[in-house]
Amino acid sequence: MPTLLGLNSGTSADGVDAVILRFDGELPNLPADILATVHQPYPAGVRHTLDRLLTELEAPLELLCSLHYEIGDSLASAAAAALAHAGLPSHGSVDVCGSHGQTIYHLPPPAARRGSRTPSTWQLGEPSVIAESIRAPVAADFRAADLAAGGEGAPLTPILDHLLFTHPHRNRLRLNIGGIANLTWLPAGASPLEVVAFDTGPGNTLIDNLVRSITRNAETCDRDGRRSARGRAIKEILSEMLSDPYFARKPPKSTGRELFNLHWLEPFRRQAGALNLSDEDLLATVTALTPASIAHAIEHHLPPGTRVDEVIVHGGGARNPVIVNGLRRRLPTETELATVEQYGIPLQSLEPLLFALLGWLCLRRIPVFYSNATGLKHPVILGKLIIPATTPDR
Amino acid sequence: MPTLLGLNSGTSADGVDAVILRFDGELPNLPADILATVHQPYPAGVRHTLDRLLTELEAPLELLCSLHYEIGDSLASAAAAALAHAGLPSHGSVDVCGSHGQTIYHLPPPAARRGSRTPSTWQLGEPSVIAESIRAPVAADFRAADLAAGGEGAPLTPILDHLLFTHPHRNRLRLNIGGIANLTWLPAGASPLEVVAFDTGPGNTLIDNLVRSITRNAETCDRDGRRSARGRAIKEILSEMLSDPYFARKPPKSTGRELFNLHWLEPFRRQAGALNLSDEDLLATVTALTPASIAHAIEHHLPPGTRVDEVIVHGGGARNPVIVNGLRRRLPTETELATVEQYGIPLQSLEPLLFALLGWLCLRRIPVFYSNATGLKHPVILGKLIIPATTPDR
Repeated sequence: MPTLLGLNSGTSADGVDAVILRFDGELPNLPADILATVHQPYPAGVRHTLDRLLTELEAPLELLCSLHYEIGDSLASAAAAALAHAGLPSHGSVDVCGSHGQTIYHLPPPAARRGSRTPSTWQLGEPSVIAESIRAPVAADFRAADLAAGGEGAPLTPILDHLLFTHPHRNRLRLNIGGIANLTWLPAGASPLEVVAFDTGPGNTLIDNLVRSITRNAETCDRDGRRSARGRAIKEILSEMLSDPYFARKPPKSTGRELFNLHWLEPFRRQAGALNLSDEDLLATVTALTPASIAHAIEHHLPPGTRVDEVIVHGGGARNPVIVNGLRRRLPTETELATVEQYGIPLQSLEPLLFALLGWLCLRRIPVFYSNATGLKHPVILGKLIIPATTPDR
Repeated sequence: MPTLLGLNSGTSADGVDAVILRFDGELPNLPADILATVHQPYPAGVRHTLDRLLTELEAPLELLCSLHYEIGDSLASAAAAALAHAGLPSHGSVDVCGSHGQTIYHLPPPAARRGSRTPSTWQLGEPSVIAESIRAPVAADFRAADLAAGGEGAPLTPILDHLLFTHPHRNRLRLNIGGIANLTWLPAGASPLEVVAFDTGPGNTLIDNLVRSITRNAETCDRDGRRSARGRAIKEILSEMLSDPYFARKPPKSTGRELFNLHWLEPFRRQAGALNLSDEDLLATVTALTPASIAHAIEHHLPPGTRVDEVIVHGGGARNPVIVNGLRRRLPTETELATVEQYGIPLQSLEPLLFALLGWLCLRRIPVFYSNATGLKHPVILGKLIIPATTPDR
C-alpha cells in the first residue's frame, strides 16, 4: 500500500499545504486513506520577500537563487510536520513526495507569443532540500514536460479528477470555484483523451474585488454570501455580462484576473448607478454571474446530448451559499450536487493531493496524456525525480 | 555498451559544448569511445541577454522564466547537432543525457553566510526541453543535492577525475588551469574519500587581466605565452606574491576572480614601476606565479611523504608553454607531465564529459561521496531525472 506525500504552495503565497495518503493498488483511487493534512505558514521573511517579488516582478539574482532554497526549507518543514502528524518516522517513510513549489511566473504559449517570449513556467522550492530532509524520493516541476510537449502547463487538476472521480456509469463534472472557476468533464468510464477541462469564467475574483471596492478594503470577500443575499440579481445586467465573448468561446480556453477585474466591471457599475441600484444588488448580480456562466458552459461547451449526473464542487466558492444555490437552481433537477469533502477529501487537501498523485505517476513512470486539458501533443511523464542515496530501491 | 550525451555551458556563457561517448561496463572508464564533440554558440539574442544578466545581476521574472526555456532550446539544439555528428538517430539514441546548464548564480555556504542568505546555486536551461527533443532520459541540476547535503556544490570535476584517471599503482594529480587553477589528488587505487581537490590559486585570470590592461583591451590573453616569454620573472616579486595567505591556507579551499584580479596586482605593479621593469617582466612574473603556486600546493597541501607519479593537465593554461615549462621545471624529475588529450579526451570535451558521467550515475542511481572535494556530509545521488514517455525502460 503506497504512502504518498503531497506539497503545494498556492497562489496566495502564504504557506505550504501538505497531505499524506495511502491507497490500494497501482493507480491512485478512492477512498484514499488521508493520514495527515497540514497547513504551515511561510516564515515572515519568506512571505515578505514573496509579496515584494510578486508585486515588483523583478529581483536580484542573489535573492532569487537563495529564495529557491529557502522555500525548499519551508516545503521540507511542512513535510516534516505532516510526517509527525501522521505518526510516521521523519526519514524514509513515504514512497514518494510530489512537490509543486511556489509559482512565481507562468507564461503559457498564448501569453509567450504576445510578449515574444518562450512558453515557460517557474516554481520556486528546491526539491533536493526536501529529499535531503525526508530521505525519500521527491518528484517536482510537473508543468515543465507538459510545456515542452506543446501544452499550456496547466490545468493539472483534471488528472486528479480523472483518476479519483471517473465513474463507470455516471457522467460527472468536477467544478473548482476559486478566483477563477474551472470545470473538468468526466463522462462515464472516460479515457484521458475524453476528459475536457477549461475555465468557465470568474469564480470569486469579481466578488472579492467588488467587496474590496465597496468597503474600501475593510472587507476582502463576501463571507457566506451575506452581502449579496441582501440584494437581488438584475437580469438585464447579468445577460449583458454573459455577452462577453469569453463565455461563447469554444474550449480549450483559460482566463484570469487579467480579464475579469474591476476594469471589466466598470461599465456594469455605471449601468447600476444609472438605475440607482444598491451596492448589494450589483454584488448579487456579480455573484449570480458565477453560477450563470458555469451553467452556460455546461449547456454550450460539453458534447451535445450530454446528461450531467453529478457535479462535485470544490474551492472557496463552494462555501458561498448564494453561488451554490444559484448553481442548484440552474442545473437540471436530475443532476446531483456534491462536494469533494463528501468524498473524504478535506478542503485544503485537493491541491497537495494532486501533487502527491503526480509524484506517484512520476516515480512509477506512468505517462499522462490529457490533451483536452493542457493541449499537449503526445504522452509525457510529468516531473523530475530525485532519489536519495539512503533509500532502498523499492 | 551505454551511450551517453553530455552538455555544458561554461562560465564564458557563449554557447554549449556537447559530447557523445560510449564505454564498457557499469562505471565509466578509459579508454572511452568519443563519438562526437560539438561546440554550438548561443543565438545572438540569448548571448546578449546573458551578457546583460551577468553584468546587471538582476532581471524581470518574465525574462528569467523565458530564458530558462530558451537556453533549454539551445541545449537541445547542441544535443541534436552532436547526435547528427555521431551519425545517431535524433530520438532515443542515448541511454542518458547529463546537462549542467548555464550557471547564473552560485552561493556556496561561506558566501551565503556572509550575505545572510541560504546556500544555493542556479543553472538555467530547462532539461525537459532536451528530453522532449532527444526522447531520452535527461539528468540535470547536479549541484543541488550536494548543497542540500551540506556541500559547496562544487567542484564536481574530481568525480570525473576519480572515475577516469585513478591508477591502481600510480599516484596521479589532475590539474585544470583555467581562469583559476585547481587540482585533484588521486593516490594509487584511491577511494572517493581519499580524493582531495582544491583551488591552487590563479590560472590565467591574472595573466589575461594584465594583458588587457597593458594593451588597453587590444588583446585579451597572452597567446602561446609570447609576451611573457620576452620578459623574465623577478624572484623577489614572485615570492611576495606567494606570501598571500591564500596559498598557505589548508584545503579544502576555493578562490576566484573576487580575490585574484587587477586590484590584487596593484602593489606588485607599483613595485615593478619603482624597479623600472618592463611590462613583459611583470607579465613573466605573473605567469610564473601559476606554476609556482601549483608546485607550492603540491609540496605543502598533499599528504606528507607523497610521491606524484604523474600530472595530467587540462585547460587553457595547458596551451601556454611558459606555464607548462615552468611547471616542468618545478616538478620533481620523476614526475611525468601529460595532458588529458593524451588520454583520448579532446580539449573541449572534459566538462561535457563530466556531465555525461554524472547523468549516467544519476540514471543508475549510483551515489557519490567526495567529501574532500565539495565537503558534503553523506553520500547522495546527484541530479534530477526526467524520463520521456516514449523511451523503453532500459
